Amino acid sequence: MARFTESQDAQVLQDLAAQLTQGRLVSSAASMAGHSRDFADWAESGAPVAVVIVAHAHEVQAVVQVCVAHGRPVVARGAGTGLAGAANAEDGWVVIAFEEMNRIVEVNSLERYAVVQPGVINDDLRRAAAGKGLWYPPDPVSSAWSTIGGNVATNAGGLCCVKYGVTGDYVLELEVVTGTGDLVRVGRRTAKGVAGYDLASLLVGSEGTLGIITEVTLRLRPSPKPARAIVGFFPSVESAGEAVRAVAEAGITPSTFELMDRHVIAAVEAMTPIGVDQGVAALLLAKIDDAGVEGDETALAVATYFGESGATWADQSSDPAEAEALFAARRLSHTALERLGTVLSEDVCVPKSALPAMLVAVEVIAEKHDILIATVAHAGDGNLHPLLITPPGDQAARARAQVAFAELMTQAIALGGTITGEHGIGLLKRDGLLEELSDPVVSLHRQIKNALDPAGILNPGKVLGPDEVDSPA
Amino acid sequence: MARFTESQDAQVLQDLAAQLTQGRLVSSAASMAGHSRDFADWAESGAPVAVVIVAHAHEVQAVVQVCVAHGRPVVARGAGTGLAGAANAEDGWVVIAFEEMNRIVEVNSLERYAVVQPGVINDDLRRAAAGKGLWYPPDPVSSAWSTIGGNVATNAGGLCCVKYGVTGDYVLELEVVTGTGDLVRVGRRTAKGVAGYDLASLLVGSEGTLGIITEVTLRLRPSPKPARAIVGFFPSVESAGEAVRAVAEAGITPSTFELMDRHVIAAVEAMTPIGVDQGVAALLLAKIDDAGVEGDETALAVATYFGESGATWADQSSDPAEAEALFAARRLSHTALERLGTVLSEDVCVPKSALPAMLVAVEVIAEKHDILIATVAHAGDGNLHPLLITPPGDQAARARAQVAFAELMTQAIALGGTITGEHGIGLLKRDGLLEELSDPVVSLHRQIKNALDPAGILNPGKVLGPDEVDSPA
Repeated sequence: MARFTESQDAQVLQDLAAQLTQGRLVSSAASMAGHSRDFADWAESGAPVAVVIVAHAHEVQAVVQVCVAHGRPVVARGAGTGLAGAANAEDGWVVIAFEEMNRIVEVNSLERYAVVQPGVINDDLRRAAAGKGLWYPPDPVSSAWSTIGGNVATNAGGLCCVKYGVTGDYVLELEVVTGTGDLVRVGRRTAKGVAGYDLASLLVGSEGTLGIITEVTLRLRPSPKPARAIVGFFPSVESAGEAVRAVAEAGITPSTFELMDRHVIAAVEAMTPIGVDQGVAALLLAKIDDAGVEGDETALAVATYFGESGATWADQSSDPAEAEALFAARRLSHTALERLGTVLSEDVCVPKSALPAMLVAVEVIAEKHDILIATVAHAGDGNLHPLLITPPGDQAARARAQVAFAELMTQAIALGGTITGEHGIGLLKRDGLLEELSDPVVSLHRQIKNALDPAGILNPGKVLGPDEVDSPA
Repeated sequence: MARFTESQDAQVLQDLAAQLTQGRLVSSAASMAGHSRDFADWAESGAPVAVVIVAHAHEVQAVVQVCVAHGRPVVARGAGTGLAGAANAEDGWVVIAFEEMNRIVEVNSLERYAVVQPGVINDDLRRAAAGKGLWYPPDPVSSAWSTIGGNVATNAGGLCCVKYGVTGDYVLELEVVTGTGDLVRVGRRTAKGVAGYDLASLLVGSEGTLGIITEVTLRLRPSPKPARAIVGFFPSVESAGEAVRAVAEAGITPSTFELMDRHVIAAVEAMTPIGVDQGVAALLLAKIDDAGVEGDETALAVATYFGESGATWADQSSDPAEAEALFAARRLSHTALERLGTVLSEDVCVPKSALPAMLVAVEVIAEKHDILIATVAHAGDGNLHPLLITPPGDQAARARAQVAFAELMTQAIALGGTITGEHGIGLLKRDGLLEELSDPVVSLHRQIKNALDPAGILNPGKVLGPDEVDSPA
């Protein structure tokens, strides 16, 4: 992306100021820096020309129109908890910050949907829904901070996806500012509807490259039922992977099914003792929320499959507080591991049958490149987060980790999987995307991008990389 | 669409013949006529230049490439059970018929998916899945004839959508021939995945205008549990609508929730006596498939809400055969009504809270235009099928029915609904689509259509209508 001249910057700032209420346009260095990048430590970012803290959809529209007029890139930002660099600004970009567009507009218990502004924090929506006996299932580990707008833009997953699906499965309708500066609604609020192309699904997960979301209508479910927790300690990651496969093969769908390997257990134990024996190579945590006797029997079956797969200990937790402590530990994994060094988060997803092979591949790749890789996984989905940890400032280790990162993606593709289950492409996985998708499919992506963002200003270079990469030689 | 000259037709036929095995290219008048249109009696169709009965994806690709080279429109055809004219050919078009690409490639019980060719009949897939203890839920009333390719191209619904979702909710991966003649795979087979734009969802429901599907990978579920049937007789359609609203408001999700009005009951009774009193104005049929005591209590609650909403009789059916006869009657509705005249199927979908108002509007519009309108509905979804019946050959009645058809769509939009819940746009609802979608959203559709079908050969004119309609004056 070309840099811009000072006079071009000044003109953009002047035009933005003319469109916006006093105070919306922020230019303090601290605020600019705080809004310029997400949690992906390894992704590049630059200095934006302006941050606009929007309060209304029409302000978003005005900002995009100014950006179209100036050919100036614009990036939308929720809480900045992304792990792929998708929310990062480059030099001279305009950042639209949604932190103050955080109103829950409606929770409709009859139609079972919620209408929210993009800056609403995931947990706040979940609480509001619970207040009406309803439930918004998608629960990324970032749910206490991440926003619905960001969740939709990345099609965020979480712990309960294994039974209840991902963010996109709950999106009914979106209000969006398009690449031509129109403010439109796509999707619907009725239970069904097939009037025209499914543009809402196209926008979900498009990381701000096809439109900027200004309102979201989300499907809700009735409140979940109380769940039983089943815990298993395994002597190897492979045996834990076999247990996941056995449970899937039996037709059981846990409502949550998580894995932590020994590095994660040790890191969490060092931060907040959870009392897990340090000889345990992997821990599986499952929940079963089916009602009644059938749920009890299913929980028992899960513990049995754990045992048959080689667990040294497996049982239904009789102490809810103890079980919750383990799930809290799972949610703390990333924070605990950040105490050990700089974390590069992987996010591959493989068929359930390939989970044991992928877990073994992680260990092999870690050893080969002499990198500490700690793995947490939404095991029931086959979605692994191998976390590559390097000492801060160790450039050699960082270089090795980047090679390992790429090898993990290649391995996932070879096993019939994908390079990203829920974190997205952003900046970090653009090469991986070109590896996973065939050339004609990449070309379809570019055609759609060019059709919907003719000025090329919507978070350009994210997902697909710079246009030049794919241009005919 | 411009007609083609005889010499142009001859050249297309010659190029197709050069690409295809003997016997694939069909030109008998009977076969041509039998493949030229779907079940939408009121939609126009023409005489195709050729029907190609394909056996392999590469043949589909070859046909599309010939069509691209000649600028010749091509339309894909499953069983032709569509109700909007989306599969209709015009003069000179090429029809790709999928009736012989009907192989179930794989049913994978561990990963819970099925891989099928587009010509597989819905019920055949359901049987194959059941053989492995699995379930493919989407069940359009046409399930005994309609194909998975057609179901995906129209994003077909059915009776169990109210709890289990529509076709699109089950599509994992598609193999598709694009508008540039490439054979590609979009989507994924893993439980989760966010690598790139959701092109699979974009193709679902696009009625063959963005690509031609050559293979489908569908998510499966564990087998459903036995269900209880609850039947209610109501003195008015409005009171039946109120019962649906009351059940929704109580947070209950039936696994099926259907409505038949008195015209439907009478027509079915005339064909196959089901023993429903002719004084009944509307019948509600619900199923509850929650397990155990909780399911029993929910079924009882549904019967209670029926009673409180004014049902003259409401009870859980104690006789499974009797309940099945009523559901069979529901499935026979369309056939029974066709004995009364030519049927024009509506397919509006409204918020559940608007169901009583929409049911009343149907009666008002029927009376206003002196048209027999019999209504069946996936009531739990707010998805109504008012069926407009006119005496064959009565042009005046037909003209009044077309006005009523348009008014029903306008009314659905006014109530916050959509013109089509599950049948699609095809030819019959192109005007309605322009009424429902805003101009900038129609423009997004055209940009996507032009980007993915640059030669304009994929079922042109369907969904969006001719390009001219939207061009700047």
